[in-house]
Amino acid sequence: MAGFGAATTLAALGNGRYAVSLDPDWQVAGRLNGGYLLALAGRAALTELGDAFPHPLVASAHYLAAPEVGPAELTVHVLRRGRRTAQTRVSLATTAGPCVEALVTCGQLDPTEPFFDGVPAPQLPPEDDCPRLPVEAPGFTVPLMAVVAERLDPATMAWAIGQPSGRGELRGYVRFDDGQEPDPVALLAIVDALPPATFDLGVTGWVPTLGLTCHVRATPAPGPLVVRQRARLVSGGRVDEECDVWDATGRLVATGHQFAGVRHQ
Amino acid sequence: MAGFGAATTLAALGNGRYAVSLDPDWQVAGRLNGGYLLALAGRAALTELGDAFPHPLVASAHYLAAPEVGPAELTVHVLRRGRRTAQTRVSLATTAGPCVEALVTCGQLDPTEPFFDGVPAPQLPPEDDCPRLPVEAPGFTVPLMAVVAERLDPATMAWAIGQPSGRGELRGYVRFDDGQEPDPVALLAIVDALPPATFDLGVTGWVPTLGLTCHVRATPAPGPLVVRQRARLVSGGRVDEECDVWDATGRLVATGHQFAGVRHQ
Repeated sequence: MAGFGAATTLAALGNGRYAVSLDPDWQVAGRLNGGYLLALAGRAALTELGDAFPHPLVASAHYLAAPEVGPAELTVHVLRRGRRTAQTRVSLATTAGPCVEALVTCGQLDPTEPFFDGVPAPQLPPEDDCPRLPVEAPGFTVPLMAVVAERLDPATMAWAIGQPSGRGELRGYVRFDDGQEPDPVALLAIVDALPPATFDLGVTGWVPTLGLTCHVRATPAPGPLVVRQRARLVSGGRVDEECDVWDATGRLVATGHQFAGVRHQ
Repeated sequence: MAGFGAATTLAALGNGRYAVSLDPDWQVAGRLNGGYLLALAGRAALTELGDAFPHPLVASAHYLAAPEVGPAELTVHVLRRGRRTAQTRVSLATTAGPCVEALVTCGQLDPTEPFFDGVPAPQLPPEDDCPRLPVEAPGFTVPLMAVVAERLDPATMAWAIGQPSGRGELRGYVRFDDGQEPDPVALLAIVDALPPATFDLGVTGWVPTLGLTCHVRATPAPGPLVVRQRARLVSGGRVDEECDVWDATGRLVATGHQFAGVRHQ
């Protein structure tokens, strides 16, 4: 099992180009996870910018095509190096063509306590009382669930026995299975790691991500992350979802905003 | 007064390049509004793509530098033309250099009723009972308030008399002053048209946008828009804000997610 660090290891090719091997562990039902691809863009941006801009702050990806597992190339264009922030554009392509286009603004995260927090963390049962999501789901395989341990609040899991709550909300604990602690780049993947919140609306099936933007707010403390994924609006074959991530101290460390296709009645 | 249509009129220069005159009416305290610049990127993307992809679906901008009022150029790169969606990258630059980099995914909005709506519209007093925001604010000028009529719920306006509620929420009615009805491109501007929600936290001063992503969900019906802007987290000199926009029928038509700098204690 590769682990997140290995799955996002880049080899510099010069002129802002980086080689990567897209990791089969980060697949969901035969497709590479959109958050993993956003994290690769973040890793490439930070590598190209160097130590002056150590963290991703805002990362936005638009998805053109689902890449196959295996070799791919990332190209980073530095758009601006400012005093406090730097902006990059990152393209991910395989030999089949361009797959992801991303914008990544980087800078330094601030560890001081928040001035205002308008997004309180959800109350969850103890981690041991939350069942871990399996790799083998009915009708499809989710290799991602082997590298990311996701234990969901049973109150948001009734869709798994055919009784979706209709609230469109999933929440639970998330850790890397190999014990690695998540860094700010990992948060770019975690905001897209839960199953679609539409499962809790009785809408099953693949949810292809069109756009994903992540705001990173702090370096997470060690320990399990608490993740809540909510559907905001399902309409016209598309859904927007909001994913909030807190660290083990209850601090909001990242938020993801996703726009995806979905099949509903 | 130019109006939104005139302020976003582009002149094609060929090869995906468009000339525009950045309109002084869309300034806030001497800076052009970030939503206006996102709307320009959306207009350029749609113009380049043509009739097969008539609406913006997801638009994400990262801001490099504040452009001056006057001539600017937009360059559109079509990344992909698919069956249902097309993706573009749009750069806005002036003679001083690059200012905005945006990704815009376009397609066709679907007028059918939502399948699930998890974001109910706020209850507001009648429009006539909501005071219109003035162009002349204490210490600065907001020309934007002449072209966009913003009438805020008095319950979210106590910050204007030095009594912020501490909730970090503004809400009210928004119309174009010239009577023009907003189209989907206008929504890209409207999600950044309200004052910063941080005013309601007692945090005053300029809030420079670093990133703005807009999900467009429907073509708005004629009539006033209802807009709610909320601060989610203020921490480390940065804020993320969420802006929801409903049309006069109560339908959620757009959501904006913004990441901005802010000065707080």
